Amino acid sequence: MTYEAAMRLALEQAVKGVRGANPLVGAVLLDSSGGLLGVGHHEGAGTPHAEAAALAGLPPERIRGGTMVVSLEPCGHVGRMPACSQSLIEAGIATVVYAVADPAPLARGGAAQLRAAGVTVVEGVSAGPAAELNRRWFAAVQAQRPYTSVHIAQTLDGRIAAADGSSQWISSPESLVANHALRARVDAMLVGTGTVIADDPRLTARRPDGSLAAKQPRRVVLGLREVPEQAALRGDGNWVQIRSHDPEAAGRILKAEGVDHLMVEGGAKVTAAFLRADLVDELIVSIAPTVLGAGTSSIGDLGIETLGAARHFAWDPAAAVRRDGDDLTLSLIPQPLPTTFMKEN
Amino acid sequence: MTYEAAMRLALEQAVKGVRGANPLVGAVLLDSSGGLLGVGHHEGAGTPHAEAAALAGLPPERIRGGTMVVSLEPCGHVGRMPACSQSLIEAGIATVVYAVADPAPLARGGAAQLRAAGVTVVEGVSAGPAAELNRRWFAAVQAQRPYTSVHIAQTLDGRIAAADGSSQWISSPESLVANHALRARVDAMLVGTGTVIADDPRLTARRPDGSLAAKQPRRVVLGLREVPEQAALRGDGNWVQIRSHDPEAAGRILKAEGVDHLMVEGGAKVTAAFLRADLVDELIVSIAPTVLGAGTSSIGDLGIETLGAARHFAWDPAAAVRRDGDDLTLSLIPQPLPTTFMKEN
Repeated sequence: MTYEAAMRLALEQAVKGVRGANPLVGAVLLDSSGGLLGVGHHEGAGTPHAEAAALAGLPPERIRGGTMVVSLEPCGHVGRMPACSQSLIEAGIATVVYAVADPAPLARGGAAQLRAAGVTVVEGVSAGPAAELNRRWFAAVQAQRPYTSVHIAQTLDGRIAAADGSSQWISSPESLVANHALRARVDAMLVGTGTVIADDPRLTARRPDGSLAAKQPRRVVLGLREVPEQAALRGDGNWVQIRSHDPEAAGRILKAEGVDHLMVEGGAKVTAAFLRADLVDELIVSIAPTVLGAGTSSIGDLGIETLGAARHFAWDPAAAVRRDGDDLTLSLIPQPLPTTFMKEN
Repeated sequence: MTYEAAMRLALEQAVKGVRGANPLVGAVLLDSSGGLLGVGHHEGAGTPHAEAAALAGLPPERIRGGTMVVSLEPCGHVGRMPACSQSLIEAGIATVVYAVADPAPLARGGAAQLRAAGVTVVEGVSAGPAAELNRRWFAAVQAQRPYTSVHIAQTLDGRIAAADGSSQWISSPESLVANHALRARVDAMLVGTGTVIADDPRLTARRPDGSLAAKQPRRVVLGLREVPEQAALRGDGNWVQIRSHDPEAAGRILKAEGVDHLMVEGGAKVTAAFLRADLVDELIVSIAPTVLGAGTSSIGDLGIETLGAARHFAWDPAAAVRRDGDDLTLSLIPQPLPTTFMKEN
C-alpha cells in the first residue's frame, strides 16, 4: 500500500471521531512489507490517540519494523495519554509518515523525538486534505482560543422560541440526550444573559435518567445584565459571568482558565456575535419537524443586507446529517469569509 | 409468502414512487404456489400502475393462476393507462389482495369488475399502514381539491430572502434542477402577488440547459394586487390570477379546471395561508448551508402564540432527506391537527 493510499484510509478513519478540544486524527499501520496491519482513529479528548488505536491488540513481532501512517504529527508529550512518539519508538516502528505538524505547543516535538531515535520520518503526505479536515481546530489553537461549537435547537422555519417566549422543548428527547452527551465532553457551556433570564437553563450535562454526568462543563454567562439570585445555573457554584459582549474576550479568558472546548447555546444574539467575530468552529443545528410561523429566529442580526453576503458553511464530513428521534441534527463548518467581506469589516 | 408479508413488501415498493396527482402504490406478484414472481411500484401520474410494473417482462404461463398483492384497489377505468382490473383478468390472475379501496370517482370499481370475472378478491390486508401512507392524498381526493405540495427554498436560519429582498438564488444549482423536475410533474404552480412583484418568477419548468420542459404547469397567481404588465409569468398566456386570499377557493377552482397536483412556491404569507387552512399535503424544504441573520422568514404568521401549538410534521417515508448539491432537501407530511386545536378554530 502506498503512503498516499494509506493516508487516504487514515483520513477516512479520522472522520469517525468527534470534534472538540482535540483534532480528528486517523492512523494506518503497515507491516515491514507495506501490508495493512491495523487502523485506528481518535475518539476525542481523553481517549487513546489514533496511533495507539491502530496498534491495539497486535502482536509486537508483527508491529516491529512497520510503518505508521497518521494524519497528524505524533504527539511528543505525556498528557492524559502516553506520548505517541515514545510508544512508536518502543514498539520498534521503523517509519512514521504524517500529513501535518501538530500546532499545539504542548503536543509538538514528536517528529524530532522520532528522528532522534533513528525512526525515518516523512512529513507532508496529503497535507492539504488533512489540514482542511481540522482547519478550524488549527485556527483555534493558533489563536489561543477554545475550539467553539455552537448548538441551535430550532423548528423547520428557524424559530428557537414561540411568540410568547416558550422554547422548552423544541427538540425531541433523543436530541436532548445527544446534546447532553456533547455537554459532557466540552469544558464549558456559554449562554447570554437573555437566555438565562428567559429560560433559566441549568446548563448541566445530564444522563437520560436525569442524573448528572461524571464530568460537568463550566457554566458561563456572557453579558452585562445581572444573573438572577435564583438562576438555576448558579447551582453548585461552578459558573462564571463574563461582563462583556465581546466573544473574543470571552474566548481569551476561558482559554486561559483551561477551556479548550467551548459550547455556545444561544440565544440568537450570542450566536450572531460569535458568527460575526468568526469564532464559530462548528455549527450544530437540531431541526424539529415543526413550524411556528412567528417567534424568535435562531440567528440574530449579522449585519448582512443582501443574499450575496450570506455566510456559507460546509457540511462536516465527520457528521453532516443525523436523525435524533424526530429531529434532524446537522453539523456544519463555516467556510472562510470572502476576502472582500473581510476587508470591508 | 403470506398475504401480510407480501403486502409489507408492496408497501416498501410503494415508497419508491413520487407523490402527486396519483397515490403511492406498490404491488407484489405471487405465483400459484405463493412464491415471489415480481414486484413493482407506481412512479407517478402518467407512468405504468404498480400492477403493470409487477407483471412486466414475465412469461404469461408463470403469471396465470397467480396472486396480485397491491396496496390500493386495482383501477377499473381506462385513463392514460389501461384499466388494471382488465389487465389482471386477461393475464389470468386468480386472486387479487389489496389494502384499501380507491376513493377516486373515476378509478374505483376495479374490485367489482374482478369479482364479476371470477377472480377471488381479498380487501383490507394492512389497510392501516396503506391508508396512512397516502393519508393526505385520500383527503385531497375526498375534498375534491388538488393534492398540494408546498416548496420552500431557505437558509439554515429559515430565511427566504435577505433584508434587501434578494432571494435569487438561495438554492444550489442541483436543487434548482430537482425543483424544475418537480415543476414538470405538477399541473399548476401557484405564488402570491407579493412574490410576483418582488421576484418576477417565470414559474416555467426548465431543463438543466435552460430549455422548456415538454410539459408545462399552469401558472397561477393568488391575491388581489395587479400582476404587472411586464410580469415574466404572463409568458405565453398559460396563466391565471385568482383574485382571492382564500386557498380553499383556489383549490376548488383549480380542481374544477383539471389541476390534480398543485405546487405552491410562496411567499411566506401564501405558504402560511395554505398551512392555516390545512391544505398542505407535503412540505418540501430545501435548506442551503448558509445563514442570513435577517430578512424574510420562510413561513408567515400562523396565529401560533406558544410552542405547544406548533404545527407538527412527519418525515415522508418516501423521501425524508436528500442531498441536492450543497443543499439538503427535506420532505414532510403534516401531522393531523390536534382535536382541541380543530375545535377552537
